[in-house]
Amino acid sequence: MAMKREEIKIITDKEEMRKWSRSMRAQGNTIGLVPTMGYLHQGHISLIKEAQNHTQLIVVSIYVNPSQFSPSEDLATYPSDFHGDIQKLNSISGGVDVVFHPQNLYDYGESITTSNCSSSEEKEEEKGLVSCVEERKLGHETWVRVERLEKGMCGKSRPVFFRGVATVVTKLFNIVEPDVAVFGKKDYQQWRIIRRMVRDLDFSIEVIGCEIMRDADGLAMSSRNVHLSPNEREKALSISRSLSRAKFAAQNGQISCRELRNSVTQAILEAGGKIDYAEIVDQDSLEPMDEIKSPVVICVAAWFGKVRLIDNIEINL
Amino acid sequence: MAMKREEIKIITDKEEMRKWSRSMRAQGNTIGLVPTMGYLHQGHISLIKEAQNHTQLIVVSIYVNPSQFSPSEDLATYPSDFHGDIQKLNSISGGVDVVFHPQNLYDYGESITTSNCSSSEEKEEEKGLVSCVEERKLGHETWVRVERLEKGMCGKSRPVFFRGVATVVTKLFNIVEPDVAVFGKKDYQQWRIIRRMVRDLDFSIEVIGCEIMRDADGLAMSSRNVHLSPNEREKALSISRSLSRAKFAAQNGQISCRELRNSVTQAILEAGGKIDYAEIVDQDSLEPMDEIKSPVVICVAAWFGKVRLIDNIEINL
Repeated sequence: MAMKREEIKIITDKEEMRKWSRSMRAQGNTIGLVPTMGYLHQGHISLIKEAQNHTQLIVVSIYVNPSQFSPSEDLATYPSDFHGDIQKLNSISGGVDVVFHPQNLYDYGESITTSNCSSSEEKEEEKGLVSCVEERKLGHETWVRVERLEKGMCGKSRPVFFRGVATVVTKLFNIVEPDVAVFGKKDYQQWRIIRRMVRDLDFSIEVIGCEIMRDADGLAMSSRNVHLSPNEREKALSISRSLSRAKFAAQNGQISCRELRNSVTQAILEAGGKIDYAEIVDQDSLEPMDEIKSPVVICVAAWFGKVRLIDNIEINL
Repeated sequence: MAMKREEIKIITDKEEMRKWSRSMRAQGNTIGLVPTMGYLHQGHISLIKEAQNHTQLIVVSIYVNPSQFSPSEDLATYPSDFHGDIQKLNSISGGVDVVFHPQNLYDYGESITTSNCSSSEEKEEEKGLVSCVEERKLGHETWVRVERLEKGMCGKSRPVFFRGVATVVTKLFNIVEPDVAVFGKKDYQQWRIIRRMVRDLDFSIEVIGCEIMRDADGLAMSSRNVHLSPNEREKALSISRSLSRAKFAAQNGQISCRELRNSVTQAILEAGGKIDYAEIVDQDSLEPMDEIKSPVVICVAAWFGKVRLIDNIEINL
């Protein structure tokens, strides 16, 4: 039976956040972190439930991270509902202890005044590495990159994305100092990147991946789904359906990745989607496979209207 | 009066290192970290003395970090004397509590087997970003970069250097979890980069810079000085002497950085040195200045024989 906890504590200041964590740990508690960008749905709730299995205390961060968006992407329209999020979190059995909701994790109270900044940023612009953080000229300049795993799939179409994710997660790890952090496997590449980063930088944090949560019709839950029209949503089901069919085909002997990939691509195109990528990759290295010989995952990103959706399915033959 | 401490504890395992730190902190102690590559001299000792002013316990790491060397650099001939280092540390009044001496911080017990690795590494080779870690193919792929501060000076002639330094310091911070870390201002750019990294990644660690230690003749102390012949050493004094003269000239009204720079360059060339760079930069942004209007630092790197030496002098008019 879930114990009734006090109201969720909302912390916006990073020093206060760290102080809370340290004092709780000094009392012998373990802390689980669930990083989110808010507009919470059942997928997020499942991450919180998983965290509850591992630690005594739960911190949920709600922060729309500007460094993982390029200036041409949807930072401005990313959905948010902080009040609704807090209500949802309050209703979770077992509870959430702290919502960490910082205003700007890249503002250090100094503006950059030096003459060379614009020219060096122009150079970065040539390389395509300008996120909404550089655009705001706040002086942040340290980035964490997982150089091999970030190259393919979402990294190709969103060049600043994983740099921004790895960096903000490093910051959150250093501020919250959790024992465990939980990520959704819907963002499969992100999950693998965070695990690799934790290994390579010697963070003392256990990273746990949670299975994808789907609506009754099969659509993978995403905060961005709210932007789909009913018609687009119906068409978007081609993603999850084609992934399930491909898995079924693989389990029944179709191990050619080209064939499996074609079937997925074709179904999405026929439904009117625009494919960003559809790849069958090794679950660990994320490298494209020709045949299914080891555990793989089929990863898809596709546009329906103005919404870019991602989904994936693991195949362990 | 310095208290007699027990013999230094030598820890090679990173889990054991973290466990020691956590148990000491749980008892209310603060921990200072002095990262070194060993072959200790008075410069290192001064860092340790400084750390003693700030924390109760002192960890000195001794680790020649392969990721800050390119395969063509002097990793193989970098001087080492672990036994002598321990003797020196044992003789420090006030003492050192732990020497952290890991064998290989980049070996995670897995070799990389995937076919794409060599091709992606070839691409990195084109960009010049192969350190002695990539060369060993251990699978490490996460790097911390301080993108603006790393560009100039040592970053130009040693493209993997600061990426390697920032990454290994992140790893050491995550393993040792110190309250304070002490760096020498002889490596001026490195010191600034670490401070910026700590700010940008929200490490809860105070970074302290220590003044350059010099031998009686003025040569900045460096482990690499041991490779200088007596004749080369005499010539290398042109660096510190020309820096002192330039500071004196600036204090007496010469604020043209071109003039000051030329005087330094000329003195080193006349002594038979080969200039890598000589720059007068803002102390904070490390951007080259035309005139001395704000606090600057003159930074020099020059070769004498097979030895590359660096030195610098701050000017606060």
